[in-house]
Amino acid sequence: MFDNSNELSPWDRDHFFHPATYAGAHARGEMPTRVMARGDGVYITDTSGRTSLDAFAGLFCVNVGYGRQKIAEAIAKQAKELAYYHAYIGNGTEAPIRLSKMIIDRAPRGMSRVYFGLSGSDANETNIKLTWYYNNVLGRPEKKKIISRWRGYHGSSVMTGSLTGLELYHNAFDLPRAPILHTEAPYYFRRADRTVGEEQFAQECADKLEDMILAEGPDTVAAFIGEPILGAGGIVPPPTGYWKKVQSVLEKYDILLIADEVITGFGRLGTMFGSEHYGIRPDLITISKGLTSAYAPLSGVIVSDKIWQVLVQGSDQLGMIGHGWTCSAHPICAAAGIANLELIDEMGLIANARDTGAYLRAALTEVLAGRRNVGEVRGDGLMAAVEFVEDKDDRAFFDPTKKVGQQVAAALLERGVIGRALPQGDILGLAPPLCLTRGEADIIIENTASAVDSVFVN
Amino acid sequence: MFDNSNELSPWDRDHFFHPATYAGAHARGEMPTRVMARGDGVYITDTSGRTSLDAFAGLFCVNVGYGRQKIAEAIAKQAKELAYYHAYIGNGTEAPIRLSKMIIDRAPRGMSRVYFGLSGSDANETNIKLTWYYNNVLGRPEKKKIISRWRGYHGSSVMTGSLTGLELYHNAFDLPRAPILHTEAPYYFRRADRTVGEEQFAQECADKLEDMILAEGPDTVAAFIGEPILGAGGIVPPPTGYWKKVQSVLEKYDILLIADEVITGFGRLGTMFGSEHYGIRPDLITISKGLTSAYAPLSGVIVSDKIWQVLVQGSDQLGMIGHGWTCSAHPICAAAGIANLELIDEMGLIANARDTGAYLRAALTEVLAGRRNVGEVRGDGLMAAVEFVEDKDDRAFFDPTKKVGQQVAAALLERGVIGRALPQGDILGLAPPLCLTRGEADIIIENTASAVDSVFVN
Repeated sequence: MFDNSNELSPWDRDHFFHPATYAGAHARGEMPTRVMARGDGVYITDTSGRTSLDAFAGLFCVNVGYGRQKIAEAIAKQAKELAYYHAYIGNGTEAPIRLSKMIIDRAPRGMSRVYFGLSGSDANETNIKLTWYYNNVLGRPEKKKIISRWRGYHGSSVMTGSLTGLELYHNAFDLPRAPILHTEAPYYFRRADRTVGEEQFAQECADKLEDMILAEGPDTVAAFIGEPILGAGGIVPPPTGYWKKVQSVLEKYDILLIADEVITGFGRLGTMFGSEHYGIRPDLITISKGLTSAYAPLSGVIVSDKIWQVLVQGSDQLGMIGHGWTCSAHPICAAAGIANLELIDEMGLIANARDTGAYLRAALTEVLAGRRNVGEVRGDGLMAAVEFVEDKDDRAFFDPTKKVGQQVAAALLERGVIGRALPQGDILGLAPPLCLTRGEADIIIENTASAVDSVFVN
Repeated sequence: MFDNSNELSPWDRDHFFHPATYAGAHARGEMPTRVMARGDGVYITDTSGRTSLDAFAGLFCVNVGYGRQKIAEAIAKQAKELAYYHAYIGNGTEAPIRLSKMIIDRAPRGMSRVYFGLSGSDANETNIKLTWYYNNVLGRPEKKKIISRWRGYHGSSVMTGSLTGLELYHNAFDLPRAPILHTEAPYYFRRADRTVGEEQFAQECADKLEDMILAEGPDTVAAFIGEPILGAGGIVPPPTGYWKKVQSVLEKYDILLIADEVITGFGRLGTMFGSEHYGIRPDLITISKGLTSAYAPLSGVIVSDKIWQVLVQGSDQLGMIGHGWTCSAHPICAAAGIANLELIDEMGLIANARDTGAYLRAALTEVLAGRRNVGEVRGDGLMAAVEFVEDKDDRAFFDPTKKVGQQVAAALLERGVIGRALPQGDILGLAPPLCLTRGEADIIIENTASAVDSVFVN
């Protein structure tokens, strides 16, 4: 995998502190590493010349696929013309202005402004700060708690790592921190009482949320944040009726709804946003990965007119809103975003995500049917998950130390396909680029079946 | 300034939520706005064709100057070859590996690894998390408080906005939050007792820090964070002896030192790092702006070997370090960093920052000498500040609502030079690109004097 013959390998081990990596094992050269060199469509090739089908699109993000020269050229052009100017105090450059217009044109109803950042994490930092500012301006200084969900993923800064509801991101970091709370994950497959129906389970989730709001005091709860479909937490679509029931609880207590669409924004579910897909009416929307297909770092918060009016009121009373990053609305990143959104339209990727996604999930379900260790195949749009259990009939989960999910992902990689073992539970995640063809879907399906069979030799 | 004749102006006002801007005034079209189109060296030109000498280098960041085709070409080449692959779980691309080696080669002694992020804010989030993780691994779960300084700037996320010690960044956002504390700003000009000497003032700052540590309990204090020279808080060099005295307090109580070198890293003070300039021996170093000259968003934490060994121990015990961003170590941003650091060497920019910086500060001091409203001209390397007062003899400060500093910055802009009114106090900040020539310095000096005289008509 890694070409140990050159200088890069020791530099990598001695100087590069990788994100989300076993620090010691990597530094000692004990774990597989891989340096990528080029890509084309769904395929990525490393420096040793080995090519894999990337069925996880990087990290749920390279939605248009690799090697798109249209985006590369937009980046090159902007870099040559003007690589940077800031957007503080009303300054700016053309690209983020054009992109903000394109985003609002595509956003759900009622949305009015875009605040640009660089990562989903920083966009959720913006959401937390705007939520607090909003309630301060409205004279409700106690209304500040934010309710997230177990198994949600919303970032890995101190506060957004707190919003995240996964152990890996809390472990030894003293997270989560106040005033963040977590409610039930809408994860029907893992429900405690297996006799409960799906819509009844959704009602229980909404009831637990309402119980938490009442126990805390509705006047202390500012916002609820959720991904339309759980992402890193398991690729779990909401149970039937979930969002409608949750939304009616939030409206009852005047609690803002933040839709974290970092994964689902711009086509992943076969619709422009996950909010329209599931009938969600958010007050704030987090966007990032699909906005540029990760060709450049860019995130955003789409702000509803309801929130914006209060921000205007606040700014008129209090002055400049003291929030920003040097590279907020960076012109090169915005130029990448413009070209990426154009390409999504030109290539018809949203319809393809819907159609090829449906094909992939149906075929995967069919090919894995009846296997004792496959507890569930699920997903929506071009996202799919296979969850492994000791025995599907009694839904007995594996001992986590066996790392069964990681074994399947490793077996799949040996077969030339990149999937991802999700961080909590034994779950293989698939989220290929939205340009996936049926032929490429067949390659994923065949190799997944073969990888599963190689791990679960009965 | 702003070309109102085309579609950009309404899109800008209706859809683009600018960072650090008066939201209402901007949306109603009541404030000056400016869309930049191209740049060359220290000059930047807007869409209406108006050119200004940018004596603030964007936001203290465009250190190599505008229009450097070497960096643009590096960005273009990487975008065309491979725009993205992630660096999770030991994966990666060549550029961040090479850049990590270049950074460690340039870093102060004892530094061993680089963790890449996208903004100074997120790098300081990483610093907070690593500090807590470090003390958890060492079995000191109570040692978690972080002491920052009034007038420090360390970011604008929830926690890094808490580290920041400026009202603008706390106002209506419920910041600062625990466990962040602030100690005295090392701001000699604003000392309470004007009779105290500079080194004595430095001792008082160190004593106050020690008092705070003792009052809180040394076993509860994890780290101290500071910019080598205060940046947005006033461009204030440390008083004589400050860092030596502070460091001896920190060492006494086993408290980590985080040097925030977002502004000073890679040449701003005429040395590679501010730490070497002032004899600071940090455990963690924050880098961002100067790393890419903002040609692409990139930040980093340089981790000392002392910290790294504990992270390895933690990772061996606890597993993967759950911290990362999708675009951590982005190849395009790293490619920009490599080209930028090469250019700094090739153009001799660090020596130029030292020499032209000394010239600029000396000449500015001389030309403004004797003016009643100029309280102090100060700075170091290629950073300078002019602080305005009602009367320099009794050091009476202006009523902040008069916005005298902003008036001077506006008068300077009318004369074709961009400076910056720093956010707290009436202070004009200057931090030009490091390629500034003496001739260009003369333009800044002349126009600053003229702008000052236009505002303070006696």
